[in-house]
Amino acid sequence: MEFGIIGLGRMGGNMARRLGRKGIRIALYNRSRDVSDAIAAEAGHLACGTPEELVAALQAPRIVWLMLPAGKATEDAVSALLPLLDAGDLLVDGANAYYKDDQRRAALLADRQIDYADAGVSGGVWGLENGYCIMFGGSDVAAARLKPYMEALAPSPTTGWLHTGPVGSGHFVKMVHNGIEYGMMQAFAEGFALMKNKPGFDLDVGAIAELWRHGSVVRSWLLDLSADFLAQDSTLDAIEPFVADSGEGRWTALESIEQGVPTPVMSLALMMRFATQGKNDYAAKMLAKMRQGFGGHAVKEA
Amino acid sequence: MEFGIIGLGRMGGNMARRLGRKGIRIALYNRSRDVSDAIAAEAGHLACGTPEELVAALQAPRIVWLMLPAGKATEDAVSALLPLLDAGDLLVDGANAYYKDDQRRAALLADRQIDYADAGVSGGVWGLENGYCIMFGGSDVAAARLKPYMEALAPSPTTGWLHTGPVGSGHFVKMVHNGIEYGMMQAFAEGFALMKNKPGFDLDVGAIAELWRHGSVVRSWLLDLSADFLAQDSTLDAIEPFVADSGEGRWTALESIEQGVPTPVMSLALMMRFATQGKNDYAAKMLAKMRQGFGGHAVKEA
Amino acid sequence: MEFGIIGLGRMGGNMARRLGRKGIRIALYNRSRDVSDAIAAEAGHLACGTPEELVAALQAPRIVWLMLPAGKATEDAVSALLPLLDAGDLLVDGANAYYKDDQRRAALLADRQIDYADAGVSGGVWGLENGYCIMFGGSDVAAARLKPYMEALAPSPTTGWLHTGPVGSGHFVKMVHNGIEYGMMQAFAEGFALMKNKPGFDLDVGAIAELWRHGSVVRSWLLDLSADFLAQDSTLDAIEPFVADSGEGRWTALESIEQGVPTPVMSLALMMRFATQGKNDYAAKMLAKMRQGFGGHAVKEA
Amino acid sequence: MEFGIIGLGRMGGNMARRLGRKGIRIALYNRSRDVSDAIAAEAGHLACGTPEELVAALQAPRIVWLMLPAGKATEDAVSALLPLLDAGDLLVDGANAYYKDDQRRAALLADRQIDYADAGVSGGVWGLENGYCIMFGGSDVAAARLKPYMEALAPSPTTGWLHTGPVGSGHFVKMVHNGIEYGMMQAFAEGFALMKNKPGFDLDVGAIAELWRHGSVVRSWLLDLSADFLAQDSTLDAIEPFVADSGEGRWTALESIEQGVPTPVMSLALMMRFATQGKNDYAAKMLAKMRQGFGGHAVKEA
Repeated sequence: MEFGIIGLGRMGGNMARRLGRKGIRIALYNRSRDVSDAIAAEAGHLACGTPEELVAALQAPRIVWLMLPAGKATEDAVSALLPLLDAGDLLVDGANAYYKDDQRRAALLADRQIDYADAGVSGGVWGLENGYCIMFGGSDVAAARLKPYMEALAPSPTTGWLHTGPVGSGHFVKMVHNGIEYGMMQAFAEGFALMKNKPGFDLDVGAIAELWRHGSVVRSWLLDLSADFLAQDSTLDAIEPFVADSGEGRWTALESIEQGVPTPVMSLALMMRFATQGKNDYAAKMLAKMRQGFGGHAVKEA
Repeated sequence: MEFGIIGLGRMGGNMARRLGRKGIRIALYNRSRDVSDAIAAEAGHLACGTPEELVAALQAPRIVWLMLPAGKATEDAVSALLPLLDAGDLLVDGANAYYKDDQRRAALLADRQIDYADAGVSGGVWGLENGYCIMFGGSDVAAARLKPYMEALAPSPTTGWLHTGPVGSGHFVKMVHNGIEYGMMQAFAEGFALMKNKPGFDLDVGAIAELWRHGSVVRSWLLDLSADFLAQDSTLDAIEPFVADSGEGRWTALESIEQGVPTPVMSLALMMRFATQGKNDYAAKMLAKMRQGFGGHAVKEA
Repeated sequence: MEFGIIGLGRMGGNMARRLGRKGIRIALYNRSRDVSDAIAAEAGHLACGTPEELVAALQAPRIVWLMLPAGKATEDAVSALLPLLDAGDLLVDGANAYYKDDQRRAALLADRQIDYADAGVSGGVWGLENGYCIMFGGSDVAAARLKPYMEALAPSPTTGWLHTGPVGSGHFVKMVHNGIEYGMMQAFAEGFALMKNKPGFDLDVGAIAELWRHGSVVRSWLLDLSADFLAQDSTLDAIEPFVADSGEGRWTALESIEQGVPTPVMSLALMMRFATQGKNDYAAKMLAKMRQGFGGHAVKEA
Repeated sequence: MEFGIIGLGRMGGNMARRLGRKGIRIALYNRSRDVSDAIAAEAGHLACGTPEELVAALQAPRIVWLMLPAGKATEDAVSALLPLLDAGDLLVDGANAYYKDDQRRAALLADRQIDYADAGVSGGVWGLENGYCIMFGGSDVAAARLKPYMEALAPSPTTGWLHTGPVGSGHFVKMVHNGIEYGMMQAFAEGFALMKNKPGFDLDVGAIAELWRHGSVVRSWLLDLSADFLAQDSTLDAIEPFVADSGEGRWTALESIEQGVPTPVMSLALMMRFATQGKNDYAAKMLAKMRQGFGGHAVKEA
């Protein structure tokens, strides 16, 4: 056994399950022991009680794959693993991370001859059944060592995984993927809002989503998912108009500014999410007060 | 007396007052008689009880200046005046109107030899003291007849009024003016939001608004007004984050699409107002459901 | 034979071919006779030399399906057909049209007991093989009469066509579809630009497009098409950065403004196309001159 | 003499001149000696041949004010000055800098008991005559020492300068100021483009700019400047549609993303500049190819 996963959340847990189904045995570590025990039992893996145990359970040269939240959790895990790993081991961050953090970490680990790689993984909760789309950034050696695992995780051995380039490139491509995802989601959301709000036609937006899945230019997996939930309830009355955003959406917008390449759609998709989080409120109040200032228009009092 | 105003709201009433202060006597009509009586008493004008009375009180060729809400109120007034006016009279819409409506009306009135003109008037509640900025669209004859009134209404006889071109051009230019106004307001609103929300600096945004009035690149009347209200209360806690929008903002956005000329700033400024009015909610719910669909992310329940 | 198509361009021609392949015989008219002759020969249809011939060749109650460019060509055809059609006939505009034009035409034809319906058809040049996605707006009677044709045109008899509602609703839904399409296209374009422009990673954007087709969140037909052309040449050096826009993109943006529903992504996607058409140039020159004005920054001379 | 300026470009040179006119004598250093000689002769200052000379010419505790391009030039100057300055001296970066760089530098210099402050200075080439708007971030002690200089540089001793808060806050406020400036400029640019491009009205945009200066809601210094250059030539035929962007515009957009506060207008104003720089071309080509892919639409060949 040479491969271990640390972090068994929605993504990490299902990836472990998929590897198990493909007959690959691995070591698991998760902060809550019951999760690793359950998945180990289900998938035939080895549950470890500590990162140390996991490292000890693997034959060198090891592959340790992190699936932890970006930021502090991942940074802490890298620090904790650093003294445990040996020259020749490979550490992979398969969660979401800013590609510049990968580049920094790779340089850090290179001092100790530990190889570092990054993998952007798409597919969400459906990846267990459908396979994951994997964007891998790292050395050729690392890519070769990971090949059997990527072949098992991907939709098929020959599709759905790619060695995109040097360290950082995997997460860079995943970041752009998510930026595109933001734009596509917002495009659908705007369109369905225009249809739902339209007086006179009484449109059945669930039926329209289903319709478009067949032969239209906008057919896509996001539309498939939308058709699913709109078929159940197209009023969406039961939920709050609040949309969270994640690191990748922001990183893509930063990248656009750093490169000087315009990304109006990606950036606005992100900002419309900010607006749903109440972060547009002060600006709105300023506007209301300015209108009052020059035109005497009434403001709504809180 | 050749000049009458119909409609004595915030704009029409103050314009009548300003003309009175400049020694010009006019006829007034307002749906609520007490308003016209009060302004007539204050400014030395003649209050009329009906549009018919107003027309009868004016010497031909008359000038009737409408200051009514755009849309139905103005359309109704034009229809009501049509049989009362004579060939050679001049009807001016000085309120906000879509310039295409002016062009349609001018053609209609031309059949009866009644001259029609449009005037875009900026200056808000401050126009009474500061003078109004007037964008006038119509014939040369109409412009010549209106000159003394525009000289009195404007900040000075030689500044602040312009014969912009043929019928419709006055409201067209006013429409673009308001589109620019939307963009400038949104720019300030975004900037003050970034400052107010910034942790660590504890910025006094009222003092900053006042600072920028002196020597900065962004000095402007909208900043003057903002400095005024921010000096009183920069928390804006007392008001709702709701911003109304008016015809001109929408017409400018339509114009941009018809011309095929990009106006991202004007259009987004408008759309951010829509968002404050709750018109982004369905789209936001769609996004939340899509995120749940592919990633299993929780939605906030209403 | 009860069904005739007028207009055999890329869309109309292939729809005629698809009907022929499904064993449905129809009448054809096209301004260039050789096109109708060729398709008639290929698909077993009847080529007619004039609209009159086509109407005469059909058994009443007839169905005449227009596939002409929106605007003048379609308006002219409706006017020409009006005296030729009988009460009970059905005229369908299956091309792209503004839904308000459909509503106006339907009212006009209703005076003569001619039924009018609108059909939005998506699928592009691939519709011949894959089937078309049809959004149909009109009466229940019209929908029932068209059912066999929609079943033949759609990807399958039970998927890919929908009676969306009353007259106008078909083109309305198609319009929104295209607005979404604009947003999705722009999202992909921005993302690939960020990847192509990225220094250091030397990304193979063709391979990445292919990768994402398998298991990623952004998998979609537009991505399939992009993977095709990027596999051949991902430099895109051979083409001009010029993007045309069509009626639907503009109509969706107008609709958003009329409804007061924010569509930043759709609207910006449209405006970025305007920018590629040189329609941003005057604004850019204004900006350069303003920078020169306050900061003494150099302007590039033409 | 306690005050020296390093860097005598458009901004630094004129600030030195203004101090001279107000009777304040300072030391000057510029890479090109002839510039410092000329300004020293004109304003009664002392020209120094090296930074060392400048430091030596000042009485401790000294104030050294940097007016160099952001980035390498400023970083190099700080490094060169570090060994020359004594505990108690004050180093001010009065050019444009990212406020995070100020915070980093202040911490670095604090180790050596050298005080560091940042000043955002607005006013452009007009500051010499009109005075500068100064946003100062630093300690109370630093603010007190700089007071006489800010009073001389500002439009008046009591207006146009402000101690905004701790180190970094001056450049932060200046950054937001420039973000607002971008939005205002873009709003004007869009509006004038809509007017210039409008068929039928033959609008005199120079006259309109002048008109709006009097009584309109959009009156502002940027409008004053625009009226100036449009009066000379409103065709703008002589210049390229190319607009440079600077650090502050980008930093404001980054700030918005980091704070999660929507700034659609500021961000789009920046991105439209990117588009004028040719950075939208790959995206445009992608769009053209996608349109060809699904609809068979022609692409323009390069």
